[in-house]
This record gives sequence, C-alpha cells and structure tokens, in this order.
Amino acid sequence: MIIVMRPGSSENQIGEVTKVLESLGLGVHISKGAEVTIIGVIGDKRVLNDVPLELMPGVEKLVPIVESYKLAGKTFKPEPSVIDVQGVKIGGKELVIMAGPCAVENHDQIVQAALSVKKSGAQILRGGAFKPRTSPYAFQGLEEEGLKLLKEAKDASGLLVITEVTSEKAVEISDKYVDMFQIGARNVQNFQLLREVGRSGKPVVLKRGPSTTIDEWLNAAEYIISEGNYNVILCERGIRTFETATRNTLDISSVPVVKNSSHLPIIVDPSHAAGKSKYVAPLAMAAIAAGADGLIVEVHPNPRCALSDAAQQLTPESFDELCKDISKLAQILGREFNYGKQ
Amino acid sequence: MIIVMRPGSSENQIGEVTKVLESLGLGVHISKGAEVTIIGVIGDKRVLNDVPLELMPGVEKLVPIVESYKLAGKTFKPEPSVIDVQGVKIGGKELVIMAGPCAVENHDQIVQAALSVKKSGAQILRGGAFKPRTSPYAFQGLEEEGLKLLKEAKDASGLLVITEVTSEKAVEISDKYVDMFQIGARNVQNFQLLREVGRSGKPVVLKRGPSTTIDEWLNAAEYIISEGNYNVILCERGIRTFETATRNTLDISSVPVVKNSSHLPIIVDPSHAAGKSKYVAPLAMAAIAAGADGLIVEVHPNPRCALSDAAQQLTPESFDELCKDISKLAQILGREFNYGKQ
Amino acid sequence: MIIVMRPGSSENQIGEVTKVLESLGLGVHISKGAEVTIIGVIGDKRVLNDVPLELMPGVEKLVPIVESYKLAGKTFKPEPSVIDVQGVKIGGKELVIMAGPCAVENHDQIVQAALSVKKSGAQILRGGAFKPRTSPYAFQGLEEEGLKLLKEAKDASGLLVITEVTSEKAVEISDKYVDMFQIGARNVQNFQLLREVGRSGKPVVLKRGPSTTIDEWLNAAEYIISEGNYNVILCERGIRTFETATRNTLDISSVPVVKNSSHLPIIVDPSHAAGKSKYVAPLAMAAIAAGADGLIVEVHPNPRCALSDAAQQLTPESFDELCKDISKLAQILGREFNYGKQ
Amino acid sequence: MIIVMRPGSSENQIGEVTKVLESLGLGVHISKGAEVTIIGVIGDKRVLNDVPLELMPGVEKLVPIVESYKLAGKTFKPEPSVIDVQGVKIGGKELVIMAGPCAVENHDQIVQAALSVKKSGAQILRGGAFKPRTSPYAFQGLEEEGLKLLKEAKDASGLLVITEVTSEKAVEISDKYVDMFQIGARNVQNFQLLREVGRSGKPVVLKRGPSTTIDEWLNAAEYIISEGNYNVILCERGIRTFETATRNTLDISSVPVVKNSSHLPIIVDPSHAAGKSKYVAPLAMAAIAAGADGLIVEVHPNPRCALSDAAQQLTPESFDELCKDISKLAQILGREFNYGKQ
Repeated sequence: MIIVMRPGSSENQIGEVTKVLESLGLGVHISKGAEVTIIGVIGDKRVLNDVPLELMPGVEKLVPIVESYKLAGKTFKPEPSVIDVQGVKIGGKELVIMAGPCAVENHDQIVQAALSVKKSGAQILRGGAFKPRTSPYAFQGLEEEGLKLLKEAKDASGLLVITEVTSEKAVEISDKYVDMFQIGARNVQNFQLLREVGRSGKPVVLKRGPSTTIDEWLNAAEYIISEGNYNVILCERGIRTFETATRNTLDISSVPVVKNSSHLPIIVDPSHAAGKSKYVAPLAMAAIAAGADGLIVEVHPNPRCALSDAAQQLTPESFDELCKDISKLAQILGREFNYGKQ
Repeated sequence: MIIVMRPGSSENQIGEVTKVLESLGLGVHISKGAEVTIIGVIGDKRVLNDVPLELMPGVEKLVPIVESYKLAGKTFKPEPSVIDVQGVKIGGKELVIMAGPCAVENHDQIVQAALSVKKSGAQILRGGAFKPRTSPYAFQGLEEEGLKLLKEAKDASGLLVITEVTSEKAVEISDKYVDMFQIGARNVQNFQLLREVGRSGKPVVLKRGPSTTIDEWLNAAEYIISEGNYNVILCERGIRTFETATRNTLDISSVPVVKNSSHLPIIVDPSHAAGKSKYVAPLAMAAIAAGADGLIVEVHPNPRCALSDAAQQLTPESFDELCKDISKLAQILGREFNYGKQ
Repeated sequence: MIIVMRPGSSENQIGEVTKVLESLGLGVHISKGAEVTIIGVIGDKRVLNDVPLELMPGVEKLVPIVESYKLAGKTFKPEPSVIDVQGVKIGGKELVIMAGPCAVENHDQIVQAALSVKKSGAQILRGGAFKPRTSPYAFQGLEEEGLKLLKEAKDASGLLVITEVTSEKAVEISDKYVDMFQIGARNVQNFQLLREVGRSGKPVVLKRGPSTTIDEWLNAAEYIISEGNYNVILCERGIRTFETATRNTLDISSVPVVKNSSHLPIIVDPSHAAGKSKYVAPLAMAAIAAGADGLIVEVHPNPRCALSDAAQQLTPESFDELCKDISKLAQILGREFNYGKQ
Repeated sequence: MIIVMRPGSSENQIGEVTKVLESLGLGVHISKGAEVTIIGVIGDKRVLNDVPLELMPGVEKLVPIVESYKLAGKTFKPEPSVIDVQGVKIGGKELVIMAGPCAVENHDQIVQAALSVKKSGAQILRGGAFKPRTSPYAFQGLEEEGLKLLKEAKDASGLLVITEVTSEKAVEISDKYVDMFQIGARNVQNFQLLREVGRSGKPVVLKRGPSTTIDEWLNAAEYIISEGNYNVILCERGIRTFETATRNTLDISSVPVVKNSSHLPIIVDPSHAAGKSKYVAPLAMAAIAAGADGLIVEVHPNPRCALSDAAQQLTPESFDELCKDISKLAQILGREFNYGKQ
C-alpha cells in the first residue's frame, strides 16, 4: 500500500504516520516527490484493515498496490484449479455445461429436462427450488418439494445436480439433495450465506452480482475459501449498465481478467445476461471463445409454459444445436466437449 | 400492460393471445397501427406474473403501463405516510435525524456518541452490530454484545435505537434490543430477510442497493408491506456508477421521484454516498433541500479510532454544525428541526 | 406510440389529445383500462417529433412502440447490407480485419505495419492522423503529414486505408488520402460531423460512444444515411461501466442485438475495449464467435515505442497468431478468412 | 506517479525502467516490499505522456498520484476563480442564474422569455440556435436567424446572452451575437471545439458529458485554459446510469468534489438532469444547498408549444417561485440572490 501525503504536509505528520505503521510491525519507505511525499508500506497489510490511516493529519489518500484477496488469487496459487465434483472436472481441458430449467416445476418437467440436456452433452442439471423474484407476487419456487423432484431427475438421468441457495436454512435443507450449491447474483455479498456454504465444503458456483466489481467478486470467493472450502467456481452473468437491449450487459472481458488474476475456474451464464432466448447462443459461443471453462444455461422442455424467466429459456432443440456448435468450437480451442456422447 | 405484436403477425396469432388473456379473466383491447398491432390488457395483471406471453408466436414485446408494486404506491394510498416510532414521527413536518457510529465498538464509544448526537438534535441512535464487509479479514461487528451496548446507550440517552440486520438470525437476536431495523444496501433484494422484517412488524429503514432501480426498490418495500408491516422508511445512499471520486453516486433525484410515486417517507444517507467526511455536509444539505424527510449520518466520537468506515464518519463538532444548518434550512422549507433542543 | 393518461384524467382531456393527433393526420385508438386510459397513435410519428404531447393536461407519459430510426432498421430493409469498399466486402461471408497502429508516427512505422498486417490476412490498414486525447499535453497526431504517410503505406502494401476524422476540416483534408472514414467514440453524437461524412458518400465506420445506447447509435447511423450515404459499418468498442479492470466494458451482446434490429454490418474493436494487449485476443475471438462481421485491431511494429495507447497494441507476432485462430473459427461458423493468403 | 513492478521482476528490469526515467530528467525512488517493488517517479510527469512504460518488461501497472490537469487544478491556483462577464460575477458571493428556452423559436417567444426571467432575477438569458438532437428528424435549431433573435432579446431586456456552439463554424457565427459560449454535454471531448472556444477568449460554460468522469471533465477545461482562456465555468447536468426515472442522474456530489479539486466556478443544470419539469425545482434547490455557484434552467413562456425538450421546461410562474426560494436559501448559506430586484 502507498500512503500519499497532502502537498505541504509536515515532517511531523509524516513521522506520526511512520510511527503507527512501525508499531504494527510494518516496514516503511518514504519518497519525497516534487509535489507530494509518499510512504510505501511493507509487510502484510491485513493488520491495517481496521486502522483509519486516511484520517491522520496530512494524509491525502491510500493507494492499494496488491489485491485485498489472498486465497482466491494467483499470487497464492499460480496454476489453475480444477474442481472435481464426483468425477466431473471443472476448470480442466473438458468444457462443463450445466443446464436445466430456471425453476423446478413438476416431476415430468424436470425429468424430461434432465434426459434431454444429458443427451446433448450436459454434465450437470440445474433447477431452482428457492427463487428470488423482484416482485412478491411472482412464483417463488417449490422449496423442499422441488429439491426432491431434482433428486428424482438426478436418479433418472445420472446427472449431477445444482441448485441456488438463498438463505442459511436453504443450505441446510438442500444439503442432502444436491451435489453443488449456487449463490445467486443478489447474494454475492450476503456474507453470512457465503460463510455457510464455505463451511459446508460442497462445491459452489458463485455468481457475480449486477454491480460487483471483479475485485469484490474475488473477495466474495475469499469468504467461502477462508472457511476451508476451495471448491469455488466463478460465474459471470452480466452486470447492470445503462443499456437495456439485454437484461444485463455480459462482461465478456471478465473471463480473461479472472484467468489473469485468479486460479479459480470461471463459467458463464448467457441466459440471465441475455434475458431473451434468441441472444443466448451467440453469447454462449462468445464465452467459450473467450476462454470460459463452461456454461450454465436455462433449458426448458416447453419454455412457453415455464413459471419463471420464460423468455430466456432455450428449447431442448436449440440447446442441442448450441452443444453441437460448442463441440466444434472446443476442438479448435484445444479443449473438449463430447456432444451427444451419452 | 401493452402487448406489441411483430410486424406481420397473423390474425390467428392475435387471436391466440386474446384467448389466453380472456381465459384469465382479463379484458382485451386491440389497436391496429400502420406498422404493428398492439393489444391492451385490462384488469389485474398480477395473474400474468407467471404467464410467458412474450413467447407466444407473433409477440414482439410486453410494455408495462402501471408499476408492478401496489401497496408501496401512490395509487393505493395517495397521501404521504407518517411512521410513528414511539412518538418520533417520520415523514411528517419534523425532520428526523438518525446518527451514530458505523459500528458499535465499546460502551464508552457508543454512550458518548449517543449523548453528543442527542445534544445536536438527533432523535435516533444508529450503530452497527452485524457488519457486512467486502473483505473477510475486516472487522465484522460485535454481534449480540454490540446490541447490549446499544441498549445501554439508549437507556443513557433516551434516544431510540436502530441497527442493521443481515440475516434472519440477526433479526431474531436484535428484536429485543432495538426500536427499528435497517436493511442494508447489499440485502435490498434478500427476499427472505425482507419477509422476516415484514413479519416482525417493527419499523424498517430500507436502503436502496447500489444497482437497484427505484422501481425494484419499491418492489422490495412491497415484500415487507405485503407481510402486513407498513412501517417502511426508504433510504437513498448512492448508486454505483463509473464515477469514483465519491464512494457511490448519491441519486438526489430519487427523493422527488419517490415522493411522486410512493407514500412512504424517504431519508438520505450522505455518509455512504460520500465515503469521505468532507463531502457529507454538502450532500446532507442537498438532501433536505430536495425534500427528504430526514437523514441517517455516521458520527463517531473519535473517527480516527473507528474500526470501520473511518473516513466517512463526522466528528461530533462537524455534526453539530451540520444540525445547526439543517435547522435553518428546515425553516425556509416549511419544516421543523429543533437543533439543540435537548 | 402509446399515450398513457393519468389515473382520473377527464373525458375532456382525452378529447383534447385526440384532437391534436387527428389535426396532424394521425389515427387514434382509445383503450380504457381498470386504472388508466391509453391512447394508441396510428401513422408516421415523425410528425410528432416536436409536439410536446407529454405536457398536455392529463397525460402521464409517452411510450414509444417502434424505434425512432428508419433507414438503419430492419423494417426498412430486412436483408443484411454488404458494403463494397473497392472490392472488399464488409457484411458478407468473408470476415474483414482492419489493423494497424493507433497513430501514424513515421514512414517506416506505418509501412512496416501495413506489410505485416497484410501478411497475416488483414484487408484494410488503420492509422490515426487526428488523435483525440483526454489530456491536452499528449501527442495529438501528425494531421495531413500522417495522411500522406498512410497513403504511402497504401501504395506500398496494396491495402485499403481508413482514418479517424474528428472535424469537418479533417474530413475535407482526409478525403483524397483515404478509402474509409472512421467516426470515433467521442464523436458519435457530433451531428455536424455525421452529416458531413454522410455527404461525402465514402464508407464510414461508426464507433459506438462510451455511453451511447444501441438505439442512439442506430440514430447516429441514421444521420449519415439520411444524407444519402448507406455505406455505414457499426463498430462496438466497449461502454463505460463501474468496472475498471478493462478500459471499457465490451458489450458483446450488441453484436446479436444489432443483427436483430439493423441491416448494417457490425465489427468489433477489442483493443479499445480491453485497453491491455493481453486481453485483445480473447475478446477478438469472442466477437467473431458472437457473429461480428470483422474486427478493427491495433497492431504496432514495436508497441514499446508507440506514441499513443501503447498498452493495447498487439505485436505483429501476436496479431499473426490471432489471425490464424480467427481463420479456424471462421470455418466452423460457416464464414471465411484467408489467413496469410497474401 | 508510481510504477508497480510484477512480483518476481528482476534487478535488471528495475534498472532498465530507472534508466529510461533518468534519461528524461526524472528522479527515481525505489521501494522493495514483501511482494512487489515499486518505483516512485519524481518531477514533471508530462514528459512521460507518450512513453509506454507499462510495456517495459517487469512492469505491472502505473499508478498516477497527482491529477493530470494543471491549470484547472487547485495546486496551480488555490483560491476560487471569479469570472467577470461584463459585470456579472460568476463564482463570487452572488448566485448567478441563466435561464431561457431550450431553443430560440421566434421573436416573441425569446423576448417574452427574456423579460420574464429577468423579472424573477436571472442575470443571463439562454437560448439554443444550434440544437444537437438524437434523431435527424427532430427540430435542429434556427442557426444564425436564432442568434439574431437572441440579440434582439438581449437588447430588449438588458440581459447577457449565452448559446450552445456545436462546431467551429458555429463559434465563428455566434461570436458577434452572444456574451458567452456553452459547450454541450455531447461535445465535452470534442477537442477541436474546446481549443476553438479557448482561442476565442470568451467566457465558456463547459457541461459535463454523460459518461465523463470529473477528472476527464477538468482535463477538458484544461484544453480551453491551455489556449489562454481562463474564463471557464463548469456545469453539472447529470450522468448516464442504469436508472431511468430521470433523464440523467444528477451527480450532486460533483459540486463539492469540484470545489475541492478546482478553482473554477461550478453551476448546475437541473433541467437536463431531471428531464421532467416537476423535478426541476427540488434539484435546483439541492444544487444550491450543495454549494453550486448558480444554475442554468430551461424556462419557456409556453412549454406546451416548445419545439424541443418541452417536458423539462418550466413555466415563468414556476421559475419565479423557484427564484423566490433560491433567494431565501442564499441567505442562510451566506450568499446572495436578489429575487425580483429588477
């Protein structure tokens, strides 16, 4: 960290700041410029988290030099992490596709969805049981009943299953039914919940929030990892901007940026970014071309009857077409995706 | 709601849409334009929440005409609501100021803060016991211990107290210690939590999220109200934009916009918007001038020793100065604030 | 267009609005809902551009139903446009790559750049002679001298050349040296300049501005087309958001959205979006995978010596690698790019 | 400026960077931290504007410490500037209000507007002759004819007049008719135009662009000042964000931020921020309460007949009411505004 002093700050003020830093066991390096003096701080800055240096007389501002997360970063672990979920490896050579309906609605719907996405090559079934909805008057999910149906679909198809958890209670209830947890965009900074899934040890897909910077997102991952759970997969799903032609603005650059800063795998959710099924396939292709390790895609056996987010769900037919294209794309990128192997 | 059909949509397609609407008990009004046909929908559109009309053949898009919230809106209740918290009236002629430190740290700090803000005219003491922090390595609050200290400060000063709740468990623990709950910006769409404070019946300050539209914010209020708790006070605290000179961009326009759309009182948090204490007073004055019903301001007996968000907390002296100015401003606006009456 | 009346608006007020519309030759369709009355307007709404209907008593708001641009839209021309620039076809099956340094610096630099990007398959050479720079103290371009050098590079390489024009005078000077004009992001709503390049008839690459919606961007294209110049190529280069990890946030979704709304070709500038050369290739691949018709990429024979935007320029070697990958990608997408054919 | 080296950068790399800096006459200060080495650069960093240090081997990133503008900044001139426009002083104790219609339409309209706004206390008349409009089919202004009418209104009322200039040609034509130039939001980075008004020496109101940071805005002012014209007044008019309830999001914080970083006066345009006349007065009051030196407000004798931006123009009656309130507000802020003195 760099401490920038105000133009005209006194020797005394510089001395006071130095004293505080040294008392915390930190090294100090002073550099006097033409206009301002700056103080370089050497050592583990986490001891400064709760020390308001910016209020000391003469201090203009603090400039962080290294990122605030540790366990999620490349400095801590330079080589990419591969998360092994019962044999399905996320972050390795093979692309992983999680697919299924926005919400679990009934037995037939979820089993049919599972069988069809598996046929196209998906390795993991998604389906929401706890649905956070903007309006209190919209369908909120089947809760435990939905989880049971998800488990039935798992048994019928042999796919792994993932579901979104929206509260500590939801984590507890879901634990025995699902193989992976998903933290939704609205909960990326619900720190209690992050700690809870951290303690569970179960693999977690952590979605980026609509106004979360990449740095904050990696700090959210840090919450999970710091509880001892390294099985975190990041998921880009679009950020909120002034553009309204799509539901969110897919920040495709986050894929190479995360690859550059973190060892964690990153997948992309083109469905929530697009908000309209006609834009899902181009965004999915772009995500893989940019280097993503996989996708999470909404697919519904009959989107016109879907109880939530109908507009953005693919039909099994369009999903199959997409998987075929992903398979070709994987080859030229030196990756693998076995379209229709099952 | 208006349904816009694609150019060239067939009579048949228009007929199908009409049939669905009528089967749900809604009225239909068709208007054929030069380029497109539009269908007006008449009746309570909440029955359409889970009907994916946008996927029916020939449908181009849906255009909402009336807002999705009801109980939070002016159509439902045209006259402004005044929330009475044990005699302190929020939303009436008198301006209400909630003030205190970001986090409760120890007995002396919180009692000293309470006595000093009371002297300047604040009616309610704020202090965080559960602190959501971006980094897991930063101070996270004293939890129940902090609530006890808050209660001690209440008893010592006679002020009402408010604290942020970050989980259902926090609601349960806080209930006996505090007079009001605060939902923080990161939890504005934590719907479980909104329902929980809704069920509690206790007055709630609902902060706007950094990427929440005013419409979504009023829908979040709707979650609380729809549980039977009408005691909701909205709180603008800045949104996330590209500008980084302040911590957030205070959306001052939200004050008149909310006054125009909702009967709920609205207060402003200039501290989190500014992120720097030197900008707090100008933003506080602007908020009141724009028509806000009050403020929630961070004040610390000794900001330089604060354990969180030190940079944005006012000293008791600057807070007193601000209250004096607010008092003068109140007069010319036809409102009241009794600076230093205690 | 739909006119939404306020709840409780009178018959009289509805009648007044109707009268104005009919006096302008427009058709009117009234629909009375449970809460509000709406008025559908039928006919060419351009006659309403300067009629402030929203101020008439009883009017709540206007809701546009069809887009405000005409000539740039798909309703006007459903099939995609292919722009033929002296034999190089943009928007057809073949992908087009424009490449070259940010700024023309000297003879050797631009000729060397031209020969190397041609070898990798680029069809058009880019190079700035008029450089808009945030700070007045940064290098502003060689102006006419730069254009002459660009022409020399054209003659030496046989490539077509494109340059950014920043004023009417720059259009006039550049006309005889270059084959295409580029309108930069900062000038996307410099309407005088748009009309000027419209009058020139020369093909124009129109960059999206950092805070321009897709709708406004297509309206900017409309300015050029309405002067009779249909040779407009749109260029996505990133928008401004809260995320600072990249220089701009590449709005990859704009590619399928533009393809859905307009007949104009769209290319992508990954260099200005990324701001860092290490992110250029993944974004370029993503752009083509999403359906873009080509790229405009910054390549400098020796980026370390570049006089502007050094950090985002590719070396000839990395550009060559990218072109090889684009060539493979083209094949699986059913497009063409003849890597290294020259 | 600070140069942050990559973890693991070699002595050799640090030596190379040092050599380049020293060859440019800059001082160097090296500080080795636990994880990274940083290099402090001492001297006038403008010599580095075109030196791509970020591409040198081992360099991670550059961190600017002092702002890039000089003449617009407080370091250059600590005391506030007061711009004297023929006796009207902007930036002093007196608040200055510029008011008038969005566009000059005809003799009666502009003269009537001038007389009425003068009566309420405005010192300067605004009126557009060159109108930048998003759609090419909207009214584009009367150009020179409009300037003549503006001059007639000036003669009739005794007010000073200001108009927006959108091109170098518009500057030339307007020069003899008006007392001040306005640079609109869309042209804040039209650097040719900035230099042109810089050379004119005439006072300039420089609006902030919808996606311009405060830092970039002050750099735009620097363009004007660096041509020798110090008579620059900044004007906040809202930025583009995800919120659509208002036309733009008024960044009220920019007022104290600019006061903290620059000596230039700052006024606020509540009309373009709000986009709806009902929100103009609260935003105007907020602006003055936050410390703005004045306002520029749209007032039309008959908004319902306005040819552009009708929805946001005040009637003379509401404007008069606002001026009365501003006058009271001025008093409690220690400023002056002589409501209705004329």
